[in-house]
Amino acid sequence: MRSIQIGVIGAGQCSSEIEKLAEEVGKEIARNKAVLVCGGLGGVMEASARGAKQERGKTVGILPGASFEDANPFIDIPIVTGLSHARNILVVRSSHALIAIEGSYGTLSEIAIALKIGKPVTGLRTWMISEEIITVETPQEAVKRAIDLVKRPS
Amino acid sequence: MRSIQIGVIGAGQCSSEIEKLAEEVGKEIARNKAVLVCGGLGGVMEASARGAKQERGKTVGILPGASFEDANPFIDIPIVTGLSHARNILVVRSSHALIAIEGSYGTLSEIAIALKIGKPVTGLRTWMISEEIITVETPQEAVKRAIDLVKRPS
Amino acid sequence: MRSIQIGVIGAGQCSSEIEKLAEEVGKEIARNKAVLVCGGLGGVMEASARGAKQERGKTVGILPGASFEDANPFIDIPIVTGLSHARNILVVRSSHALIAIEGSYGTLSEIAIALKIGKPVTGLRTWMISEEIITVETPQEAVKRAIDLVKRPS
Amino acid sequence: MRSIQIGVIGAGQCSSEIEKLAEEVGKEIARNKAVLVCGGLGGVMEASARGAKQERGKTVGILPGASFEDANPFIDIPIVTGLSHARNILVVRSSHALIAIEGSYGTLSEIAIALKIGKPVTGLRTWMISEEIITVETPQEAVKRAIDLVKRPS
Repeated sequence: MRSIQIGVIGAGQCSSEIEKLAEEVGKEIARNKAVLVCGGLGGVMEASARGAKQERGKTVGILPGASFEDANPFIDIPIVTGLSHARNILVVRSSHALIAIEGSYGTLSEIAIALKIGKPVTGLRTWMISEEIITVETPQEAVKRAIDLVKRPS
Repeated sequence: MRSIQIGVIGAGQCSSEIEKLAEEVGKEIARNKAVLVCGGLGGVMEASARGAKQERGKTVGILPGASFEDANPFIDIPIVTGLSHARNILVVRSSHALIAIEGSYGTLSEIAIALKIGKPVTGLRTWMISEEIITVETPQEAVKRAIDLVKRPS
Repeated sequence: MRSIQIGVIGAGQCSSEIEKLAEEVGKEIARNKAVLVCGGLGGVMEASARGAKQERGKTVGILPGASFEDANPFIDIPIVTGLSHARNILVVRSSHALIAIEGSYGTLSEIAIALKIGKPVTGLRTWMISEEIITVETPQEAVKRAIDLVKRPS
Repeated sequence: MRSIQIGVIGAGQCSSEIEKLAEEVGKEIARNKAVLVCGGLGGVMEASARGAKQERGKTVGILPGASFEDANPFIDIPIVTGLSHARNILVVRSSHALIAIEGSYGTLSEIAIALKIGKPVTGLRTWMISEEIITVETPQEAVKRAIDLVKRPS
């Protein structure tokens, strides 16, 4: 049985408060035996991957550039695309559900594509642009809701 | 001297009122000797391309699918990508400025990418997710502001 | 009626002899009222686009990078992809037939994709890797055969 | 320390003899503690992934379509791209070295891109289009040479 893949989306630079949230999200994903998928770079991507590795989870980073070296140190499997921002769509497609943590325009583009193709999105302090985004208050809730939605699609 | 390329983004299905706005936008783009770039399909894409052709403008359609036949009849140059939604990013990149007309999640993803990479966006009855989107009331204003922004980048 | 789009593929750097062939190919494409599609950069791409413009043809350049400025001066419509080598596939898909002129590994990748998806390829001094490539001796023959194959698919 | 990622490229349909070679290649990759990267579908991709799982290796499948379900049963981590043939480039980029097993035009396009961007390629009964392809006779040799080339780039 293949693992559930949960995408974590957020900015490449963020406050330490947001980093802490992202790290907790990564830990919870790992505790739930899901694979963490992200964009492989810094900020929310790195903090969530670090959290996942602290709980012995598995992490995939779908990189925009052309080099394995771009991946943050907590990525187990770098996917090197060379597609620049078009890789955002692959982060969405390769996740059964997404967790958006704050984030700027790049994250918004990912949320929009997720909603477009019908992937569940839970959000922590993120863009409030649709009632289809399930707004949550804690990392635990974000992961729980995301995984529940994959198991029992609404 | 190469022409300015103006992207028109909006939904593949829309009301006749929105179609009429899109057609006017297309006409204005052609009157300004700019090339209209769009996603090549129906709705806002087709209406704006039809408008451009009525004023003897040039139209480019960047298609998500694998067939030339997917292009609406008002597209002069179909670009066939086979990239599905990833083609949205090419519509943005291949435009010097973008005009968003209403639109749903696909359009939102294009607006987000445009703002991410610093392309000017004017909006007619569209997503109000950032003050960086220049909200306008008429097709004429949408095109005028878009072209002005290309000529004199802010 | 939309124009036929003929792709010209070849290296970004080439000898003056190959440039001359490419320029002739571009002229012939324009004389046949077809649109020239290429990768938009130097070498064979630039020489063929220059030829097409000398005969008042239309040219499209599908660029790998993120900037309009990358296009050679003979491109009417730059398509900016930011997809790096993945744009090769778009050159193939956006052409009804392809003309390969010499070329190195990038060109080979385009020939391979063209044969994979069933696009006709004529070749001038290019990779001889399949009998499906129609080997020709002159630019005139290359364009004539390409256009014939589009009009009467084998 | 991150694992080496070895790409296995070959056709989606193949003879049982080629399948057997692919399965052995997959086993050897796993025995060498490398991650197997492939296109995620049938034929050589499935056989090599099956081999890797028999030796408790890890497998990544970079899929052309839009569904997780397209992955063969031996893929641990499906990467869902929706990019059709453009995903071939991601298979190449996400591998430190590639092993080509027989293969048709799709495989040729991957070999060409690999040589273009300087990735080592070893080949078993595959396209002989360049002296840069390291032709080998056995699955063991294919994997050994590929891994040696990653560790000590020529």
